[in-house]
Amino acid sequence: MPKVITFGEVLMRLCPPAQGRFVQSDCFNVLYAGSEANAAASLSILGVSSEHVTCLPDNELGRAASMQSKQCGVCTDHVVYKEGRLGLYFLESGASIRSPKIIYDRFDSAFANLDADAFDWEEIMEGAEWFHWSGITPAISQSAADACRNAIATARKKGLKVSGDINYRRNLWQYGKTARDIMPELIEMCDLLVAGITDFENCLGISDATLEATCIKAAKQYPNIKKVATTNRGTVDSSHQSISGVLWNGKGILESRKYDLNPIVDRVGSGDAFMAGIIYGYVNKMNDQQTIDFATAACALKHTVEGDVNRVSVSEIEAVIKGENVGKLLR
Amino acid sequence: MPKVITFGEVLMRLCPPAQGRFVQSDCFNVLYAGSEANAAASLSILGVSSEHVTCLPDNELGRAASMQSKQCGVCTDHVVYKEGRLGLYFLESGASIRSPKIIYDRFDSAFANLDADAFDWEEIMEGAEWFHWSGITPAISQSAADACRNAIATARKKGLKVSGDINYRRNLWQYGKTARDIMPELIEMCDLLVAGITDFENCLGISDATLEATCIKAAKQYPNIKKVATTNRGTVDSSHQSISGVLWNGKGILESRKYDLNPIVDRVGSGDAFMAGIIYGYVNKMNDQQTIDFATAACALKHTVEGDVNRVSVSEIEAVIKGENVGKLLR
Amino acid sequence: MPKVITFGEVLMRLCPPAQGRFVQSDCFNVLYAGSEANAAASLSILGVSSEHVTCLPDNELGRAASMQSKQCGVCTDHVVYKEGRLGLYFLESGASIRSPKIIYDRFDSAFANLDADAFDWEEIMEGAEWFHWSGITPAISQSAADACRNAIATARKKGLKVSGDINYRRNLWQYGKTARDIMPELIEMCDLLVAGITDFENCLGISDATLEATCIKAAKQYPNIKKVATTNRGTVDSSHQSISGVLWNGKGILESRKYDLNPIVDRVGSGDAFMAGIIYGYVNKMNDQQTIDFATAACALKHTVEGDVNRVSVSEIEAVIKGENVGKLLR
Amino acid sequence: MPKVITFGEVLMRLCPPAQGRFVQSDCFNVLYAGSEANAAASLSILGVSSEHVTCLPDNELGRAASMQSKQCGVCTDHVVYKEGRLGLYFLESGASIRSPKIIYDRFDSAFANLDADAFDWEEIMEGAEWFHWSGITPAISQSAADACRNAIATARKKGLKVSGDINYRRNLWQYGKTARDIMPELIEMCDLLVAGITDFENCLGISDATLEATCIKAAKQYPNIKKVATTNRGTVDSSHQSISGVLWNGKGILESRKYDLNPIVDRVGSGDAFMAGIIYGYVNKMNDQQTIDFATAACALKHTVEGDVNRVSVSEIEAVIKGENVGKLLR
Amino acid sequence: MPKVITFGEVLMRLCPPAQGRFVQSDCFNVLYAGSEANAAASLSILGVSSEHVTCLPDNELGRAASMQSKQCGVCTDHVVYKEGRLGLYFLESGASIRSPKIIYDRFDSAFANLDADAFDWEEIMEGAEWFHWSGITPAISQSAADACRNAIATARKKGLKVSGDINYRRNLWQYGKTARDIMPELIEMCDLLVAGITDFENCLGISDATLEATCIKAAKQYPNIKKVATTNRGTVDSSHQSISGVLWNGKGILESRKYDLNPIVDRVGSGDAFMAGIIYGYVNKMNDQQTIDFATAACALKHTVEGDVNRVSVSEIEAVIKGENVGKLLR
Amino acid sequence: MPKVITFGEVLMRLCPPAQGRFVQSDCFNVLYAGSEANAAASLSILGVSSEHVTCLPDNELGRAASMQSKQCGVCTDHVVYKEGRLGLYFLESGASIRSPKIIYDRFDSAFANLDADAFDWEEIMEGAEWFHWSGITPAISQSAADACRNAIATARKKGLKVSGDINYRRNLWQYGKTARDIMPELIEMCDLLVAGITDFENCLGISDATLEATCIKAAKQYPNIKKVATTNRGTVDSSHQSISGVLWNGKGILESRKYDLNPIVDRVGSGDAFMAGIIYGYVNKMNDQQTIDFATAACALKHTVEGDVNRVSVSEIEAVIKGENVGKLLR
Repeated sequence: MPKVITFGEVLMRLCPPAQGRFVQSDCFNVLYAGSEANAAASLSILGVSSEHVTCLPDNELGRAASMQSKQCGVCTDHVVYKEGRLGLYFLESGASIRSPKIIYDRFDSAFANLDADAFDWEEIMEGAEWFHWSGITPAISQSAADACRNAIATARKKGLKVSGDINYRRNLWQYGKTARDIMPELIEMCDLLVAGITDFENCLGISDATLEATCIKAAKQYPNIKKVATTNRGTVDSSHQSISGVLWNGKGILESRKYDLNPIVDRVGSGDAFMAGIIYGYVNKMNDQQTIDFATAACALKHTVEGDVNRVSVSEIEAVIKGENVGKLLR
Repeated sequence: MPKVITFGEVLMRLCPPAQGRFVQSDCFNVLYAGSEANAAASLSILGVSSEHVTCLPDNELGRAASMQSKQCGVCTDHVVYKEGRLGLYFLESGASIRSPKIIYDRFDSAFANLDADAFDWEEIMEGAEWFHWSGITPAISQSAADACRNAIATARKKGLKVSGDINYRRNLWQYGKTARDIMPELIEMCDLLVAGITDFENCLGISDATLEATCIKAAKQYPNIKKVATTNRGTVDSSHQSISGVLWNGKGILESRKYDLNPIVDRVGSGDAFMAGIIYGYVNKMNDQQTIDFATAACALKHTVEGDVNRVSVSEIEAVIKGENVGKLLR
Repeated sequence: MPKVITFGEVLMRLCPPAQGRFVQSDCFNVLYAGSEANAAASLSILGVSSEHVTCLPDNELGRAASMQSKQCGVCTDHVVYKEGRLGLYFLESGASIRSPKIIYDRFDSAFANLDADAFDWEEIMEGAEWFHWSGITPAISQSAADACRNAIATARKKGLKVSGDINYRRNLWQYGKTARDIMPELIEMCDLLVAGITDFENCLGISDATLEATCIKAAKQYPNIKKVATTNRGTVDSSHQSISGVLWNGKGILESRKYDLNPIVDRVGSGDAFMAGIIYGYVNKMNDQQTIDFATAACALKHTVEGDVNRVSVSEIEAVIKGENVGKLLR
Repeated sequence: MPKVITFGEVLMRLCPPAQGRFVQSDCFNVLYAGSEANAAASLSILGVSSEHVTCLPDNELGRAASMQSKQCGVCTDHVVYKEGRLGLYFLESGASIRSPKIIYDRFDSAFANLDADAFDWEEIMEGAEWFHWSGITPAISQSAADACRNAIATARKKGLKVSGDINYRRNLWQYGKTARDIMPELIEMCDLLVAGITDFENCLGISDATLEATCIKAAKQYPNIKKVATTNRGTVDSSHQSISGVLWNGKGILESRKYDLNPIVDRVGSGDAFMAGIIYGYVNKMNDQQTIDFATAACALKHTVEGDVNRVSVSEIEAVIKGENVGKLLR
Repeated sequence: MPKVITFGEVLMRLCPPAQGRFVQSDCFNVLYAGSEANAAASLSILGVSSEHVTCLPDNELGRAASMQSKQCGVCTDHVVYKEGRLGLYFLESGASIRSPKIIYDRFDSAFANLDADAFDWEEIMEGAEWFHWSGITPAISQSAADACRNAIATARKKGLKVSGDINYRRNLWQYGKTARDIMPELIEMCDLLVAGITDFENCLGISDATLEATCIKAAKQYPNIKKVATTNRGTVDSSHQSISGVLWNGKGILESRKYDLNPIVDRVGSGDAFMAGIIYGYVNKMNDQQTIDFATAACALKHTVEGDVNRVSVSEIEAVIKGENVGKLLR
Repeated sequence: MPKVITFGEVLMRLCPPAQGRFVQSDCFNVLYAGSEANAAASLSILGVSSEHVTCLPDNELGRAASMQSKQCGVCTDHVVYKEGRLGLYFLESGASIRSPKIIYDRFDSAFANLDADAFDWEEIMEGAEWFHWSGITPAISQSAADACRNAIATARKKGLKVSGDINYRRNLWQYGKTARDIMPELIEMCDLLVAGITDFENCLGISDATLEATCIKAAKQYPNIKKVATTNRGTVDSSHQSISGVLWNGKGILESRKYDLNPIVDRVGSGDAFMAGIIYGYVNKMNDQQTIDFATAACALKHTVEGDVNRVSVSEIEAVIKGENVGKLLR
């Protein structure tokens, strides 16, 4: 019985090998990724039963996408297949002073054209404990936004915890609505957000000088919100960065250690790894400090793993938190 | 000064290595291809100056596509770049009794959304000798069809020879027009067609028992048409096929040798190699028999070359026609 | 609810790329395979819900093995993890007159050392329709044989159909028992066997001039056996072979078409693809002729797919049976 | 109409993948490179029309070399093909405290044996703005030196700006002349040099304590020289270095920022990227400070790109100069 | 005539490419390695004639293992082949804060089951100067320990220098004996040890506060021991470490420089490279300081070379010692 | 003690992967090969002790070349290293009707410039049984021809059997001598030749209608010649050929079976495999028929192995002769 349900689009990711540029590569590495699917995969690998709900094209590429979720142990029983295309993104890794780049090609996908009524959320969420969505989904299309709202409302009704990774991206909102039109209703139903100050400003029109002050303001208006988490990234260049985590728990700000990351193997999906760490913590009854520590260490380790999915174990995360074995050859 | 001008869409081709299936491959080989661009590249490699005109997305993938044309020596000076996506196709090679497959993802591309007035055909065709288009282009969108008609009309006006590769594909015509709405006007202005019996039926509503009879009927209605060429494929399975060529020259049917091809390395683009061979022949003042022999041998050799472009030389084609050196280690 | 349950060891397969020999390769392709797991994966890909039960080492290699089953949609909920090693096999593909080779390294694996009581067959088989085992499992160790017998007995008791792929391999029986000691009791409980004449001889001491005569003799002694299927392989060399299927259904021998296979991409797992085809046919209420036709076409197609798993669809198999589209480029 | 003409040899570069050593690699990455061709390719990618003139062997390797120039948009219309071999160099990347290594195999190449009269410099330079050569060319053979002198003299006569990248390499001068025999005449005709103190010493016998003092002395003797540029490299080890640029403009020394580079992906060609940046600046009417800033940032970015060619855009270089987006994921 | 004889097991090493994790890799890089074989290969590459004695399975994998020794110039004339399996290890490279991991699968190998009398040590050591073993061998099985003792005793008798790399690994000792049962007798016959404080404790029950004090105690009890060497590793993380060397020569402690290593390409085998450096030094009559300097520089360079074998030359090591050319492009 | 000594140049072979063409490949597979070195490697793999004598450049590429001989077990103790370059050849595999191609780049190599007195043939051949050379060596340069003559003369003097693979290649003879100037003296000292009718014509000016007649004539003039062997190749195309062997033993012509080879993996080196098979047969006291059967089967199997070296075992060859196991999966 899946404990955690996630909903969102899955894209094919195409990435030149090593540190090659698009124009010089005659093959691209292929995998399938999406913010919420990544979180579901991370959770499953950490031992938390999870299911990812999405809409995929009814062809071999759509099936390949769901097969990658399955490989990670994520239930895909309620994936809807329909005519259409699979969204794509092209990723070029950076190096040193050269920045990484993403070219999206995701418009008009099968997911964007999903039928909002195609998902039986009552059945899907039966027995589940947690529902997770991100701000990418309602930005894609009206029907995606509708399906997302239905999912959140059902989750709330059935007593699941609801988390939203706000992840505001201006250039996604192309169907005639803005984030401020759509997001407030969705955020209102959440217990926990991953969001930074600018996310609040862009989606809710709420802002203040510090994250804590912003959270207090937001929670006043949206009283279901009990926790807000985010990461702070320090950047030397594309290869060398640091990461630390912050959690507002209604009482104050808790912080994790800061991790120095050099070299970065793949930073894409590190936010999803953080999100999965937060959910993992609360599903496993960790306290707030343990949770932000776990999520940040998970996020830090993700930077060392190729691909969007955080293929690390609980014991690896715990060792990193304790500073044990770092760099030691484990036999 | 380019002698041959071609016009049409360029797609990214993504293909699992070796004989892998989509669902089992974690990298895809990448190249850029389109029926008319393939023909232009073949011609350039054969030593005929050529230019390919197209519309590409104004990003690094669009630039990568034009860089491949450039690499083959094709002039790209009149490529138009605009916002939008690059069309794609996914190719799975077959083997033995397993068939090869293509999944297209080309709708709503920058090319489909091109501005029909963005091309200054008068300037482009100045000094050129031949214009080539295919039936794929007018099937993509109204503006693509308009641009194609403008190009053909200008070519005709300026005294270029015009060739059209009819290449009817039912599932491309999605913008509210059918081939019979659009194609007759375009075909009417052509000197030479690559077309089979069903192409005449689908595009012109003309059919008869034999290719010759069909050509005679068509030429009566469309008197500009002087030559019609096509290939006949014999199929044992995906790895083992044969190819021969046929040319109707207004007087009768000329045939080439039949080539046995086993194993086939990559058959995609073999029609474009044939087309380029036909143009090569006439641009180089070959007679009809020499032309169909050259084009068919070029087409046959293409089956042995990976990728859409026929990377073979004139001397290799001539050796195949003569049956010289086949299988001999050339030092 | 899985309809088909399979039980057996999963090995890591290590194979030099292309047609490389062991001594000249500095990388090996890696996948995870086992006769029964292959059948379960094939079934799942064909749309039949399946579960594979096995014992894997409690390390990342064991987890990788189960992740491959999951990727194919096979349920792995009852896999037992324990200390120990993952069995391996090294495969060298042949070519033309050079034969393919396998070096096994599977002794003393976690599976060989499994605890026969670690599997709750009553629970595993609840609601299932079919149980499948192969003669490899009882050959590995006493505890594997015991677990296999328990599984078969439970299956029988709970009314599942039982199939056994006899697959006699002399050099596996190393734990002090012979096939004739162990197999009769297991075969006695089967409804359907995949077996050739020598399998009957080696496991039951029964033989006769023809497969039909042998089957009749065997069914007299082992009256549960209602069907016996096998394949006939014609061999030109490593790259060129043919395959046809035979089914004895208690009344007579039914035969499939013979498929010519050239070149063979990977023949390993073709027997498992045949087995899965047989099960697919009967689970889907095909008649005997339809079943042997389906299974043989599945087996034939497997030869064109890299890896042990038959990654083909029902519609591909049906097209091969009808001789449709063979070698045609499917767009 | 090409604005910038370059002249020099093109070699095949063979390089073990990743950080492999020659003796342990069973494949080598292949590309085609030469100091001046690299500069032409960089310029073309930056949007400056360029043509590279060279002599290549009349075989498929020579054609592959010119195809790479073409791919980068460089005009190759005046390449001369003749019998002979393609020069080669083998590159082993270093890592950390292990140094990178080059083994040259370039003697007796088609270029070394070129016919100095094979190039119609009058025609080639018609309408061009800038001619660029390097000190490698006159070091190769007498005929190469002659062709280079002819080119420079024609450029001067036709009013092109002339730049020379001195790049003194003692072990190249093997044909009986020394740099001091040949270089003064060539340098005398230059407007701009890329050269360090030892280059002046080795080629002109001029030296002084500082670059500025050396430049002043040289300009007194060679009054055409108006600008001298060079880079300063700081070296921690093979993976971690810094680069800054210096320009003497007749009045004094201008300096760029210093860029910290870690890890270095490929430093080969970084001098050519610097050279292209200098030419880009002056062709685009940048002032001296802008030019040295642009050239140094281009040079720095080259260290992050695999291959000899600096595959970066003007906007990427500008962002690096401003310190914008460094390490940021660009979507 | 080999000067240095080594004895020990050779394993197949299987390693995901780049920084991939086991569960996400569909191919593994393959090589053959063992502590003593690595030392022999290093010595041979450095110009010291060496022979490695081992027992390998009599199949193509065993032959591939010996072919790698041969490739490095190591004599394999006395390798014994017998039935059995080749031991394996699976290596996952770490990156940044993610640690590297090894999964061993070496029990019950052909080497573990070797016949202690299969080696004619008298003949093997005829004319040799040095014998080297490691503490891995006696930990594998009783017969391996016996063979090792025979070899050491013969070496001693014939006047060879004997070195032992203690390399204590608790989880290897599985055959009913402990290191303290077996190692004292072997260590007693050694002239030189590579060992750290915990090695003395684990194998001899001798310990003290410092390495020097421990060595003095040990040498009192085991008077043949004249030298003890070891390395000190400083660890930032998996990618960034430092190494320095220490040698106790009976009079005091000599230290090498400390080398900063970033990034580390492959640290596996660096201890064997150190060992080979020590032997190289003494065989070449270096003094103690020269020897520890040479061995440490060799060890440091090994971290920049993929694979277990230290593929570097004497001149590269000498340049590192002098700090010459570090990071310089050598042409 | 090597039984068989071979002498000849070793080249680096560079080959696009799979069936790629030179102009479309961005990596080349690398190995080291030469007719006589290939024969020595084959012999060593078959169990016949062999030594290859050559002259290699004193750099890492030369060392890599000798390391490949060593890997195959060939003694390289008398290799001479000197300044210079390593000869190269570029190989493009053909497919179906496209022919394979070789571009040589071997002039002015270290071998071509060898010092004919650098080899102490008396010492090298001490205790050996057989010396083998090919017609490539005397074609390279006067000093190579001199060294070859010295070697043959010494072999003869010391009682070794001498075999020569005539392998006439017109375009190699570039140093002012022709084959007819040089070869007669060398052939005169041979016991066994591999040669076809045109080889006799080109080197000795002897020809006749049949091989037998030609051999009889030649043996009359060159009475040392006791045996002449050659292969007959039947060619369908690049992928499909047949091979059979012929031996003239002074009494008549013996023939082997004809082997059908489809697909051919790599035919380069198949002549050397045949040569090695002939030597193997006579060194192992096979009779003439056994020898030609063995050599032809070895040659046939070589076509299925990537690379110049025939990596097959005696038992594989014997099975092919008997027609056993062809295409069977060997477990």
